[in-house]
Amino acid sequence: MKRIIILGSTGSIGRQAIDILSHYPDRFSIIGLSAGSNAALLAEQANALKSPYVAIADETKAGELRDALTYPCEIFSGKTGMMEMAGISCDMALVSIVGAAGLEATLTAIRSGTDIALANKETLVAGGELVMGEAQRHGVSILPVDSEHSAILQCLRGTESEGRDAVDALYLTASGGPFRGYSAEELRDVTPEQALKHPNWNMGQKITIDSATLMNKGLEVIEARWLFDVPPEKIKVLVHPQSIIHSMVGFSDGAVMAQLGLPDMRGPILYALNGCTRLDSPLDPPDFAALGTLTFDEPDIEAFPCLGLAYRALEEGGTMPAVMNAANEIAVALFLDGKIPFYRIPAIIEEQMAIHEPVPADILEGILRADRETRERVLRAY
Amino acid sequence: MKRIIILGSTGSIGRQAIDILSHYPDRFSIIGLSAGSNAALLAEQANALKSPYVAIADETKAGELRDALTYPCEIFSGKTGMMEMAGISCDMALVSIVGAAGLEATLTAIRSGTDIALANKETLVAGGELVMGEAQRHGVSILPVDSEHSAILQCLRGTESEGRDAVDALYLTASGGPFRGYSAEELRDVTPEQALKHPNWNMGQKITIDSATLMNKGLEVIEARWLFDVPPEKIKVLVHPQSIIHSMVGFSDGAVMAQLGLPDMRGPILYALNGCTRLDSPLDPPDFAALGTLTFDEPDIEAFPCLGLAYRALEEGGTMPAVMNAANEIAVALFLDGKIPFYRIPAIIEEQMAIHEPVPADILEGILRADRETRERVLRAY
Repeated sequence: MKRIIILGSTGSIGRQAIDILSHYPDRFSIIGLSAGSNAALLAEQANALKSPYVAIADETKAGELRDALTYPCEIFSGKTGMMEMAGISCDMALVSIVGAAGLEATLTAIRSGTDIALANKETLVAGGELVMGEAQRHGVSILPVDSEHSAILQCLRGTESEGRDAVDALYLTASGGPFRGYSAEELRDVTPEQALKHPNWNMGQKITIDSATLMNKGLEVIEARWLFDVPPEKIKVLVHPQSIIHSMVGFSDGAVMAQLGLPDMRGPILYALNGCTRLDSPLDPPDFAALGTLTFDEPDIEAFPCLGLAYRALEEGGTMPAVMNAANEIAVALFLDGKIPFYRIPAIIEEQMAIHEPVPADILEGILRADRETRERVLRAY
Repeated sequence: MKRIIILGSTGSIGRQAIDILSHYPDRFSIIGLSAGSNAALLAEQANALKSPYVAIADETKAGELRDALTYPCEIFSGKTGMMEMAGISCDMALVSIVGAAGLEATLTAIRSGTDIALANKETLVAGGELVMGEAQRHGVSILPVDSEHSAILQCLRGTESEGRDAVDALYLTASGGPFRGYSAEELRDVTPEQALKHPNWNMGQKITIDSATLMNKGLEVIEARWLFDVPPEKIKVLVHPQSIIHSMVGFSDGAVMAQLGLPDMRGPILYALNGCTRLDSPLDPPDFAALGTLTFDEPDIEAFPCLGLAYRALEEGGTMPAVMNAANEIAVALFLDGKIPFYRIPAIIEEQMAIHEPVPADILEGILRADRETRERVLRAY
């Protein structure tokens, strides 16, 4: 029985994880659930699963959570409570907390010797060097839950003996989002409602907006650099609107391996939580003849400058990706609140990157300071 | 240094093997070359490579070969000579002899403990059970050189621990050949010249006609059954005219792995000869954005009955695939000679299958008898 904790159980990934794991009651036991502030859903999940540990980040919701739980369990709350939860001994922690808050929880779980299924992009974007170093030090695995990185991991299976030099290119595929083909001019006035209509994937709000700006792909480029130890110039982005090829790896013999599937996050979630071993699952393969056509195109960096900003942040290194990520998080929130137009998202990120002097990102304090100062600077302006 | 013998060095695969291995003079040594009757090219190859063993199947060409060789070497000739060559101790034998003649050479090499890089489809089509049994008995590997089976092998890498039950489907891709989209009626009068114009692959004449009838894909379905120990109902054929996805494997978790590349046989040749480990090679990966589009379609079994005949032969088992293969070889030769129209190829195969009573195909004699009797029966009619 594999004991799992889910950090961020009420979000999109957390809910899909609970759904897919429910098919394997003899293989997985969910022993801990945590959420930010959705006490009602968290209690409902915990009551159904009878998980012995439950945590809520928002202290003010602790009472509501306690009242709604119908079985005996240990309840944690507040930031300290989240760290207590992350430190519980188990076989794998799914980190599906949205935003930079995932970084500290991930580090706590790593230091407890827990393997990580990582759905939180910002953990590696802001803290890649630190997190991968700690993971190596504690002998834990960081397994991606993103469909793209899960695909790359699957393409790399069995190639360990050939080493990273045999890898010529990682091809991250991008749907292109709801605004694929739009010019910079056409993008100026798009609304949050338009941006939230993702053509293929059913995801949370933050990541859906990131897909619309292509920042999601930029974050994935940075993640890929850390997960697979491949230099930025070998990481390419291909627009593939059908979202059937989840990503590809090109090898030094001219061969390219690809992983394909219907767009359903439960696939990569299950693959990671089962330690990158396949299980019989209720997910169907694509019907290729019915699909008919798969297409590829270069991304339009002019109309979608966020992708270029991500490569630039990766190149400048240190705390620059953390600043890029923090500026993006606040800009996306401002856009969703109707406070800024769409085209200001990359502009705000670029402004913050221009004034930041990066320092090494090998200790948590430096990363969190860069993150915090950037958020405060952007918020002060609105 | 890996010592290689090439059985069938003057054909399309043999020549491409010599070409690609010439890039790795410190890794591969070609110690033996054999050909059917092209003494001039065989001598040219041997003189360039200084291979210590040279064999020619056609006894009447032995003198011409001897006269053309400019360095001291051992020369074999005739059928006995071919078997002596196949039995020479080496690290790998590339079997690229066209047609059923490859079967005996393959068995001889297996019994000498030599790993096989197999480009001869008929070896497994006619003798799959026998060959795989002997390979297991002698602890040798049978590595496919076909692009499709090489792709499947690459897709299966790293999945050994999950077992064959994790494999839901093998998807063999087919270009559809020069007559893709033709109706049965339109196919009646196509000429050898039309049939020899393959849209994507540069191959020998026999296999090019087999591509035009889809029998090539039928032979590959039977090969796949033996190479990967997967039942026929899990082996699917997908028409993919661009020949970029060389084949795919569907797994029980809904994920599909694919191997892609430009259509160039030197890729799968090198992969097999290097023991299924990648090498830096001069072959380029596809330019996906420039390609733009990949398409899929179901094969048209009505217009191309050879594919259905292959599934039927596999199902009936025993010597039936050997009979199907022998009838096909003769029918293709008759078509190339202008003696029968295109539509008679499947008709002849079906006639021969209808009158054959299959017996177990676990000893060579039975397979060769079925093969010989079928050839004689077809030839007698023309």
